[in-house]
Amino acid sequence: VRFSVTYQVEGDPFTAERRAADLCLEQTVELPEDMVPTGSIRDGIVGRIEAIEGGALTSQVIVSYAAETVGTELTQLLNVAFGNSSIKPGLRVLNIDLPDAILRSFRGPRFGIAGLRDLLGAPARPLLCTALKPMGLSAVDLATLAYRFALGGMDVIKDDHGLADQPFAPFEERVARCAEAVRLANRETGGASLYVPNVTAAFPLLRERAGRARAVGAGGLLLAPALTGLDAVRTLADDDAIGLPLLVHPAFGGAWTTSPTCGMDHGVYYGLLMRLAGADGTIFPSFGGRFAFTRDECRGIARFATRAIGHLRAILPVPGGGIGAATLADAIAAYGRDVMLLVGGGLLRLSPDIAAGCARLRAMVDDSVREGPCTSPG
Amino acid sequence: VRFSVTYQVEGDPFTAERRAADLCLEQTVELPEDMVPTGSIRDGIVGRIEAIEGGALTSQVIVSYAAETVGTELTQLLNVAFGNSSIKPGLRVLNIDLPDAILRSFRGPRFGIAGLRDLLGAPARPLLCTALKPMGLSAVDLATLAYRFALGGMDVIKDDHGLADQPFAPFEERVARCAEAVRLANRETGGASLYVPNVTAAFPLLRERAGRARAVGAGGLLLAPALTGLDAVRTLADDDAIGLPLLVHPAFGGAWTTSPTCGMDHGVYYGLLMRLAGADGTIFPSFGGRFAFTRDECRGIARFATRAIGHLRAILPVPGGGIGAATLADAIAAYGRDVMLLVGGGLLRLSPDIAAGCARLRAMVDDSVREGPCTSPG
Repeated sequence: VRFSVTYQVEGDPFTAERRAADLCLEQTVELPEDMVPTGSIRDGIVGRIEAIEGGALTSQVIVSYAAETVGTELTQLLNVAFGNSSIKPGLRVLNIDLPDAILRSFRGPRFGIAGLRDLLGAPARPLLCTALKPMGLSAVDLATLAYRFALGGMDVIKDDHGLADQPFAPFEERVARCAEAVRLANRETGGASLYVPNVTAAFPLLRERAGRARAVGAGGLLLAPALTGLDAVRTLADDDAIGLPLLVHPAFGGAWTTSPTCGMDHGVYYGLLMRLAGADGTIFPSFGGRFAFTRDECRGIARFATRAIGHLRAILPVPGGGIGAATLADAIAAYGRDVMLLVGGGLLRLSPDIAAGCARLRAMVDDSVREGPCTSPG
Repeated sequence: VRFSVTYQVEGDPFTAERRAADLCLEQTVELPEDMVPTGSIRDGIVGRIEAIEGGALTSQVIVSYAAETVGTELTQLLNVAFGNSSIKPGLRVLNIDLPDAILRSFRGPRFGIAGLRDLLGAPARPLLCTALKPMGLSAVDLATLAYRFALGGMDVIKDDHGLADQPFAPFEERVARCAEAVRLANRETGGASLYVPNVTAAFPLLRERAGRARAVGAGGLLLAPALTGLDAVRTLADDDAIGLPLLVHPAFGGAWTTSPTCGMDHGVYYGLLMRLAGADGTIFPSFGGRFAFTRDECRGIARFATRAIGHLRAILPVPGGGIGAATLADAIAAYGRDVMLLVGGGLLRLSPDIAAGCARLRAMVDDSVREGPCTSPG
């Protein structure tokens, strides 16, 4: 059994061939060609060039690796796909193609789009998410905000990723109060809003925080894999005692995609890797806002989040960073209905009455569905 | 109490000012300026511009943040320093300056250079490290290699970062056999070589593997923080029941430094962050080899690894990737004596008799010390 990785290589076709051969060694035996033992190591462990499609300045190279080089762990899968070679300039991962035999090691998202829609009682429309902020508010103030957001019909009310365990709003108090506030609002509205606290934390505290959040009634968990390690996502997703939907946040992970010649394709990092790790929704900066992602890059993320990949459930693209009333329709046009739009500051601008602002946004989303079919990024 | 971060900003001085103001908001309240509540949040939580040194095309901007925004966790410290802004192009972290009040939250390296030198019985000379490879060898074959490396006087014999828990050399068997092999060799030579297995693993297995390694006599632990999360390093470093030296490996972390305009300065990522997390030695690709780091970038890493930073012990720069007999003297000239040179494939080329090859290398190192004072990267 083998899996394959598609790399973008800077340089002419001759360079691409040389670098493809280098990838086969660097990612496996890490020895110069003439020092590789013959027999099973040379034939079975060293990577294999499957294809080189050369352009004048940039080529695409596909290299396959034996499943045996990985074992069953996500950390080692990523290590073989791009460990040392991530440090070499002019190499970018465009795809990782995993056969079922390897995918079977990963349970994948527990809820996915369908599971989240069930929880939220929203079978078809675009979903709405907002963030509790700013950092510096007390737990009581954040809970008041959460209550109003839920009254206004926001589907997911998440902690800002900057809320951790600070003196102004300690984790335990904040999460208990906000969960209670959303529960109260749901009772009033008959709605099913979810409160999703940020459990990004020190390595030994992460599961404990997730457990506390679950115990006080959180409806999901937020974590930033670039800070916790990607396998922390998988660990929480696989934990039956937690059993909550997971949203992942891109904080601190920017380096993966900011250079067009290094790191990874946006879809691979924000879509494929997060989905493989078991996230149910992947947050990323949408096009046209204060971050520099293009519409195509964002649609690429949505594609990797939703297209058929073995048994892995499709997950929600959660674009944010500048989405508001003015850009909502265009966002739905770009992503289709299977999206959760993250509206932060833009929401607070809609009306001095927060619940009324949420309700207005919600009405716009409902209208968008009545207006007819949306394009999908497929 | 405040800490400050120095950012390199692409663009003219006017752009630098705008982006500095943006950093103050993005990294804290994540709201547009006019929506920030007045009072303690505006005055105490929002970041503060401390300095802007403009160049024509690139500026340096120093922004300070309140310790309160962080709490006591490494994950949140990194989040405030570069969470969302890491995703914006044209921003690069050049330094993070932490006052003692914040450094106190971090125990730092348990051994550092002095502690490792004590363990190895090598008070002054450059140290030598090598790697067990290639992937695909059996545990018995890897142990045989380890035995010969130790006989030849290599100080640290580490797993290649590609050795995880694969069928050809399962973790438990490999680590037990290699630790035993190095112990036997030490008994013969009277030396104090350390075997350092790779414990990079799935999140819930990491501490377990570290504990197993310790139980069978490993002399240190190797992990790749870009795969495990940086706080996994801190967790193992702080764990008194483990109490082993830690080496960190750069696998999968390349994106942090490959672009000159994004991510982080080499010294900050490979030096400062790894040291803050508690690594005793930081592995990185040396200049002139098959990776593209420059001599200056490498010396910058050594500087951040060794210069005075509060109570944090100085740690070993461990340059690798192409160091061998031909480049040894130049490496010592560049890094000084407080270095551990990682010699991989180059060692196997020195002599068909591995122990003899090691001994030759060791003699070269001893000679380099007799030849007089080395420059230091300070």
